[in-house]
Amino acid sequence: MDIRAHVICVGNEILLGHISNTNAEYISRKLSSIGVKTSRHISVPDEEDTIIHAIRESLCNSDIAVLTGGLGPTVDDITLECISKALGRKLIPRKKVAEHIKNNFKKRNLSMPKNNLRQALIPEGALPVLNNIGTAPGLIIPVQGKTLDRKVLVALPGVPFEMHAMLDKAIIPFLKKTFKPGVTIKSRVIKITGLPESRVNEKIRDILNIKGNVQMGIYPHPEEITVKITVTEKNEKLADASIVKIEKKISSRLKKHIFAYDNEKLEEIIGNLLVRAKKSIALAESCTGGLLANRITDIPGSSRYFKMGVVTYSDESKNKLVSVPAGIIKKYGAVSKQAARLMAKNIRLKAGSDIGIGISGIAGPGGGTAKKPVGLVYIALSSKTKTICGKFRFLGQRRIIKYKTTQAALNMIRLYLLRK
Amino acid sequence: MDIRAHVICVGNEILLGHISNTNAEYISRKLSSIGVKTSRHISVPDEEDTIIHAIRESLCNSDIAVLTGGLGPTVDDITLECISKALGRKLIPRKKVAEHIKNNFKKRNLSMPKNNLRQALIPEGALPVLNNIGTAPGLIIPVQGKTLDRKVLVALPGVPFEMHAMLDKAIIPFLKKTFKPGVTIKSRVIKITGLPESRVNEKIRDILNIKGNVQMGIYPHPEEITVKITVTEKNEKLADASIVKIEKKISSRLKKHIFAYDNEKLEEIIGNLLVRAKKSIALAESCTGGLLANRITDIPGSSRYFKMGVVTYSDESKNKLVSVPAGIIKKYGAVSKQAARLMAKNIRLKAGSDIGIGISGIAGPGGGTAKKPVGLVYIALSSKTKTICGKFRFLGQRRIIKYKTTQAALNMIRLYLLRK
Repeated sequence: MDIRAHVICVGNEILLGHISNTNAEYISRKLSSIGVKTSRHISVPDEEDTIIHAIRESLCNSDIAVLTGGLGPTVDDITLECISKALGRKLIPRKKVAEHIKNNFKKRNLSMPKNNLRQALIPEGALPVLNNIGTAPGLIIPVQGKTLDRKVLVALPGVPFEMHAMLDKAIIPFLKKTFKPGVTIKSRVIKITGLPESRVNEKIRDILNIKGNVQMGIYPHPEEITVKITVTEKNEKLADASIVKIEKKISSRLKKHIFAYDNEKLEEIIGNLLVRAKKSIALAESCTGGLLANRITDIPGSSRYFKMGVVTYSDESKNKLVSVPAGIIKKYGAVSKQAARLMAKNIRLKAGSDIGIGISGIAGPGGGTAKKPVGLVYIALSSKTKTICGKFRFLGQRRIIKYKTTQAALNMIRLYLLRK
Repeated sequence: MDIRAHVICVGNEILLGHISNTNAEYISRKLSSIGVKTSRHISVPDEEDTIIHAIRESLCNSDIAVLTGGLGPTVDDITLECISKALGRKLIPRKKVAEHIKNNFKKRNLSMPKNNLRQALIPEGALPVLNNIGTAPGLIIPVQGKTLDRKVLVALPGVPFEMHAMLDKAIIPFLKKTFKPGVTIKSRVIKITGLPESRVNEKIRDILNIKGNVQMGIYPHPEEITVKITVTEKNEKLADASIVKIEKKISSRLKKHIFAYDNEKLEEIIGNLLVRAKKSIALAESCTGGLLANRITDIPGSSRYFKMGVVTYSDESKNKLVSVPAGIIKKYGAVSKQAARLMAKNIRLKAGSDIGIGISGIAGPGGGTAKKPVGLVYIALSSKTKTICGKFRFLGQRRIIKYKTTQAALNMIRLYLLRK
């Protein structure tokens, strides 16, 4: 039987849109890893009635309710009172928790404000989980009753790194032991580029429709489509086998449009390919303004293959740094096949690298014309034997166009290295 | 009377913890800005019954329900069907929407898969909002009935940058006009750099404790602290007055550590300062690998002041591109005050710009020594009259160190231009 969880996040700042609610994501990912499915995320403001209602509702509709936020020492923090009222349990001062909080202040050479002792008032029957980073304890509250059987309410502080530590060390092991979910949930992400979402969809429609213990998803990103396979199986071995089977099918249809799996990034993939091929690279960027160099150098150890980059943001700098003659720019324009090809070739020669990349385009919002609209980009790749150049037209805002251009450039490098 | 909204996010990927739900945050922030309070965020999986239930529940308990996700062209995308069932309204093919989708493909020189036409099936009575980036239209659905009066259901695609554009341009103006919220919620963000969070806290603790119709928040970011003032008032004038009063207090205590307000970014601030001072800039980056050039060129119109950038990722390139003699590198190291100063000066001379920036440091994870640990960074600024150089030590992972370095460099440029 499925074990289902609800995640409740408490805090006005979430509903004002002041912070991104990363807690729900983190908790669900961890619950997934032990075979617990999250069936709802709910975020509510710091209002007593609303919190009480959310707790009761979640305990009715799930086996596990994990709540974060509102456990701090200030008057805004009313989660403990709300749990007490929602479950009809008294708040009882707990000596062990109080001492832990006091010690926490002592360690940091700070005097403890009295307020913090409120955090040691724990609902009857709750198991406190001590907080080694902040002061608010977490709580595991087994809930049983006439209508509620084998349920657990978990309450954790909203500060992400405090919550993470407590969830990983105490909560997840406790839930795994208590609920013994009879299933393992495993996921695999397949990353695709060079095809629009609709085309990917067409090619693997039947696979995306697989149901049962498999959940398929397809998600668009700028110049990247991810396909996610999630399987629920009795054990890890079966789950792996099931994933591999589907993965192979997808792979046979999308072939080299697949560039990576799971958390791998395109810049990482080309890094690995460059290292393996013992090739080095240099860049001459115009409209991407250094983003390609930045992405490539995000990878630790990139200095092994990345020689140099130049950002030639003016006609003059195209001439000074990569010797694009003023005549070429006058005749064809700075955004032209001719300019991009020269940029690629000359940066390769200047750096003494195996590969040179030249990028010239119009990121917008200004600078577009009917003939050369915003989003028009030329990307050239020069090697010792030849120079190739692609013409692209990207849609979106300035930053998106920059990013899409780097995706296409990295993919060009990838395909070039694969062909070798 | 308060206008209340619910935000519903649809997608298995959210409940599996595969993606961070930034849509709910964005929507609530925008709703806040027109005086609409979000009273609940709900995320549900791609399951028909669950989505229908969430739509009905939200329409019962709020004036506005904003739903994102599930509007794509694939079989997973069942939001349109769910809306149709939840409201009892037929799906009707809409020519205008279909044409817009076809044109979108034409512009990109792609043939349209038949599936995409599913996105032109719109529930009866819905006002479509065309999507200029992707294909899924958004929907504004006025909902009236026996029990529902003057309510609106909004449906938007889940792809963040598509959703943002549609929300900003069409949905928010529509909701403001339709609901004329009786209160104004206004926020002001004050951005601070060059001080740690604890120091900012100390300096404005009493202000952070203001209560009543004012909500204060303080949030840490890499080399940046933001303080948020949120006030709820009867009208905009009162709200503004209230904000200005608090802002002045904070400003008098933090002075030039405040670098920007609201959505302004450091790179935008220095862009404005450069334009005003009629100064130009050029960059020689090592450990930041082009991130500084990328941030500066994220700003439209940056070609007016940004001349060129070089990414000197090897000792050789430091010599070739900015003439740092091998002897200097041998004597002091590539990561040294001496190298950074020369990089700044020589890129300025090469570019013929007013300001030159030289950055050299160790981004890690490898490459650190006891004397020169990971996170050690030198940032130099050269002008016609002098060259200054700062030594920094940043903590964190590679990408964080890169980012913090660019924050510090941009702040150095800012302070230099302010002093002028």
